[in-house]
Amino acid sequence: MPSIDDYYPISCPFCKIAEAYPPEPSTPIPASPDPEKVDPQCHLLLSTPHVMAFLDILPIAPGHILVTTRQHYEKLSDLFPPTTADDWATRRTAAQARDSAKAIGEWLPVVSRALCKVTGIEDWNVVQNNGERAAQVVPHIHFHLIPRYQEGRRENAGKGKVDVGMLKSWRMFGRGAREDLDEEEGAEMAGLLREAMREEVEGEKKAKL
Amino acid sequence: MPSIDDYYPISCPFCKIAEAYPPEPSTPIPASPDPEKVDPQCHLLLSTPHVMAFLDILPIAPGHILVTTRQHYEKLSDLFPPTTADDWATRRTAAQARDSAKAIGEWLPVVSRALCKVTGIEDWNVVQNNGERAAQVVPHIHFHLIPRYQEGRRENAGKGKVDVGMLKSWRMFGRGAREDLDEEEGAEMAGLLREAMREEVEGEKKAKL
Ligand SMILES: [Zn+2]
Ligand SMILES: [Zn+2]
Repeated sequence: MPSIDDYYPISCPFCKIAEAYPPEPSTPIPASPDPEKVDPQCHLLLSTPHVMAFLDILPIAPGHILVTTRQHYEKLSDLFPPTTADDWATRRTAAQARDSAKAIGEWLPVVSRALCKVTGIEDWNVVQNNGERAAQVVPHIHFHLIPRYQEGRRENAGKGKVDVGMLKSWRMFGRGAREDLDEEEGAEMAGLLREAMREEVEGEKKAKL
Repeated sequence: MPSIDDYYPISCPFCKIAEAYPPEPSTPIPASPDPEKVDPQCHLLLSTPHVMAFLDILPIAPGHILVTTRQHYEKLSDLFPPTTADDWATRRTAAQARDSAKAIGEWLPVVSRALCKVTGIEDWNVVQNNGERAAQVVPHIHFHLIPRYQEGRRENAGKGKVDVGMLKSWRMFGRGAREDLDEEEGAEMAGLLREAMREEVEGEKKAKL
């Protein structure tokens, strides 16, 4: 029998973020979310019923973003397992997982475009790790968006303390070798990213009229 | 003015695969596609109007799969750019890109589940590279699914020639250090993966009845 923790694993840092920042009914891009609602700080970029995006607190490069599901799923394979169950709750859970999967696919390009616009990069990696052996640290599905700056250009996008050379190693996903996100720099970057995302979303809206 | 190549970039190896294996109307999982329809061989796993999946021809580990869009898009940011254009063709192109983005999100979990089932792995990486500096080789959006085998267990899943230690370097995405997929092994692996995917899809179908 599932425990309450299966429904609401509050010990999970991404579930804590999901709880602290419920989706706003009017827009997927929060206007100016307070980073202090959780500890450590969260620089939120996107908040829908299905997905969230925020800055990684241990960035590999300036503008390192995580895109996650709002619901708690550990691995990508946990998203919409087929079910033959005929009870409503099970079918609803499966439908929700499928919607989350589609939403991830739908938002990754939008967040990528905002990232390119704000940082000036043209190249970036998207990485999603499943399980310890694959360097997954937080057991809640998340996609890393990692900018690859041109040599000598990354200083423009931040204080440049993070060595892009670290990308050469998969150990980058461990906790040891990365530096904490500077709070002020994070706030500034997040503001610019939200603005760029808002333009994307408004462009979509206009296109539909 | 766009040239014919913009619509149909046949020099792209993934577009060649898309042309050789049109979607089947009755099922997303091709029954027994002929790998020889393209050169080099293609071990196709999934073929819908929006997405395809096939074995990487230079696998990092046995079961290394690529999930791609059927249409030619170079980078993730090319998927559904917002448009304010009011001509039908432009809006249709944008809608198609959005559908492709959602389909990628929808199929990545299904392909992942089949991969886990067939290879016995529990851990894997999903990697999508944008641009040369991010180690993108084929300029057509694709997600790598890379199994991470337990030490000493990967022999079970193949001939085990590929060193998982290569994963430690991002250079893995270069062409140099990987070995060609063995044709017989590829055919066997692909058959098992299609069977597992078919079960996933049938499970979904049953669940809807
Ligand atoms: Zn969680
Ligand atoms: Zn192509």
